[in-house]
Amino acid sequence: MLTINKQRLLDDIESLARIGATPEGGVSRPAMSDADAQGRAWFRRRVEDAGLEFRQDGAGNLSAVLSSADPMAPTVLFGSHLDTVPNGGRYDGALGVLSALEALRTVRDASLALPAHLEAISFTDEEGSLLGLFGSRALCEHLSEQDFAYARGGKSALAEGMERLGITTSTVLSARRYPTDITAFVELHIEQGTRLEDAGVDIGAVTAIVGIRSYMLRFIGTAAHAGTMPMDRRADALWGASAFVQQAQMLVRDTFTPGVMNCGLIEALPGAFNIVPGEVRLALEFRHGTLERLNHMEDALLDLAERIAAEFHLRLDREMAGRDAPALMDERVVQTIEDAATALNLRHTRLMSFAGHDSQEISMIVPSAMIFVPSVQGISHNPREFTHVQDVVNGAATLLQTVLRLASAGNGESGD
Amino acid sequence: MLTINKQRLLDDIESLARIGATPEGGVSRPAMSDADAQGRAWFRRRVEDAGLEFRQDGAGNLSAVLSSADPMAPTVLFGSHLDTVPNGGRYDGALGVLSALEALRTVRDASLALPAHLEAISFTDEEGSLLGLFGSRALCEHLSEQDFAYARGGKSALAEGMERLGITTSTVLSARRYPTDITAFVELHIEQGTRLEDAGVDIGAVTAIVGIRSYMLRFIGTAAHAGTMPMDRRADALWGASAFVQQAQMLVRDTFTPGVMNCGLIEALPGAFNIVPGEVRLALEFRHGTLERLNHMEDALLDLAERIAAEFHLRLDREMAGRDAPALMDERVVQTIEDAATALNLRHTRLMSFAGHDSQEISMIVPSAMIFVPSVQGISHNPREFTHVQDVVNGAATLLQTVLRLASAGNGESGD
Repeated sequence: MLTINKQRLLDDIESLARIGATPEGGVSRPAMSDADAQGRAWFRRRVEDAGLEFRQDGAGNLSAVLSSADPMAPTVLFGSHLDTVPNGGRYDGALGVLSALEALRTVRDASLALPAHLEAISFTDEEGSLLGLFGSRALCEHLSEQDFAYARGGKSALAEGMERLGITTSTVLSARRYPTDITAFVELHIEQGTRLEDAGVDIGAVTAIVGIRSYMLRFIGTAAHAGTMPMDRRADALWGASAFVQQAQMLVRDTFTPGVMNCGLIEALPGAFNIVPGEVRLALEFRHGTLERLNHMEDALLDLAERIAAEFHLRLDREMAGRDAPALMDERVVQTIEDAATALNLRHTRLMSFAGHDSQEISMIVPSAMIFVPSVQGISHNPREFTHVQDVVNGAATLLQTVLRLASAGNGESGD
Repeated sequence: MLTINKQRLLDDIESLARIGATPEGGVSRPAMSDADAQGRAWFRRRVEDAGLEFRQDGAGNLSAVLSSADPMAPTVLFGSHLDTVPNGGRYDGALGVLSALEALRTVRDASLALPAHLEAISFTDEEGSLLGLFGSRALCEHLSEQDFAYARGGKSALAEGMERLGITTSTVLSARRYPTDITAFVELHIEQGTRLEDAGVDIGAVTAIVGIRSYMLRFIGTAAHAGTMPMDRRADALWGASAFVQQAQMLVRDTFTPGVMNCGLIEALPGAFNIVPGEVRLALEFRHGTLERLNHMEDALLDLAERIAAEFHLRLDREMAGRDAPALMDERVVQTIEDAATALNLRHTRLMSFAGHDSQEISMIVPSAMIFVPSVQGISHNPREFTHVQDVVNGAATLLQTVLRLASAGNGESGD
């Protein structure tokens, strides 16, 4: 069986981690930053040094391509992203891109003749420093000019970043790919959770990526003097908001597990030691694997917020801040991952992804699935993010075997 | 009985409120701002127009003085402050200064010969835009060079402000007054609470100003991915902090009424929709009228914070942010206020002040007390702050009668 070059892959992970390295041992390569630009240039050199074809599309997505002898052959696409959150880890994203590159080199070194083009891809701004899933959305034609105006990193920061990458609104909008040209998409990624580690399983075959909804809630009461206004006469917005945080987490744990919720931002206004908060802004986000459960969660959480606002003599305002639908992975690709893992004698299981990934976009136009490998303690978006060498190797090997099966199948079953 | 000129007082309140007027109908005259400087110039003109002596001391405190024929006579001091919080009301502080000026004019108009000098004073920066109770602390020698360095408005802003007032560190430190020269201090102020209004009482005689203690609490957990980290494995700092807000308010209401607490500032770090908060900073402030109760509250609240931190698998850090001792008012001055109100046929009651005032400083060196008049709905530090005309007049009349009694008593009982 074809095997990847373990040392070559580990050297790449090590080299790339030096670009944007932080004092805490993490990596900061936010999309379109200087460090990201350096990471992109490094990737291009590695691709060209390997004798592979390098491409950059109109959305700044980078590819290494190993073409089939048949120019009309379909493409098997696989990869992930090179950008990171600020002070993140060295595996999130990078593992999938570098393993994809290593798979290509392995196929090329073996001079395998395949009935499909192989394309290892790195998507622009998966993490959303400026505009989340930028590259994968562009590829699927899921980006519009309106999205640029409401980029969460700010419109002008996005414009500067795009200029740095040498892309424009019109090149981005032209980056779409034709689904019929692509047989399948596979993304190798660290789990960023503890289910594989807890179960002692090597490989996760991802069946769905959870949907995510988010709201900015505003609990509105009356600012007052913190000394002279008796406690029983206050409309303290923080009392209501804190009751919501307490009760929302109990509600979700009791009723919606494995669904999750988070309140990651909170602000009390006007904001002084001696003023009773007249308003609290609270970010609410929740995730589940099916539309039905996500709808139930939304109803239950918003109803809870309304009831608590009334109880604490507050008014509730809410603004939707995000809405990503759950994404179902393709059963055939999931099975191919399982077959590959079985062939490699690796323990595997099916699971849901609770994090968003480029696969959620690509899966809408191309049959897709993800390979997860364990993350120690589930830590990610953190300098302490770590995946053991054996798991790195298992993941890359499973990716390679999956891609080889998809490349062959794609030929035999084209148009299925 | 000598009566104040109601229209002259109301005109002054109206004129002063135009300086720093805000679109919402409030007043912004933060200490040492341009508006404050205009307010001070206006006050000087009003004093001089009335034929009274104007003084400014080394801390920028402004006085109108009506001297006794006896140059060795003691002084009865009374007043409040002209500065406001940003977008505050027209009564907080101003009522006490303008009523004091009106009392002086009334005495002067009546050509009363008194055995004490009368001094109506406006203290610098009571509200603490730059350095709280600046003027009254300077007068009591409770300000040191260290206080300038840690001014809450910032060291350089304070230096600029002082330059605008024409004062320096050394003039401030020389602004102390000798307690033996001053018979008593009286401050008329709006209640900024609802106890008088609720009880239908005209005048409050303040027996104590509550002590205030404040802490910045830090609940420290572990930042994590809000999707992939299962809810039951999180050390979510906001869960702990919000449980503390809930339980602290119940603890204080159940056990420490009329003592009060407030959490007026909160921040979750790193602060993103999709990151479980690894740290929450929470401002805690609490107030009570006696040292003993304040100590009990402090122990109970900090113990609660520790227990909640442990329960939520968090670490607690705390930093003391302020510590103002409760201030007992002088029984003789309190009784004099009550006698004055009785003589005026006004309903009166004793109460504590839950807000800080210059009186808490002055009471440490001179027998002091405060006169409270009702504030509609207890609203203050707000453009909607309002006190009815009759209550304004009642307050000024009570102040005048109190001052007249203290001036006579001061002569008869000097050195008591």
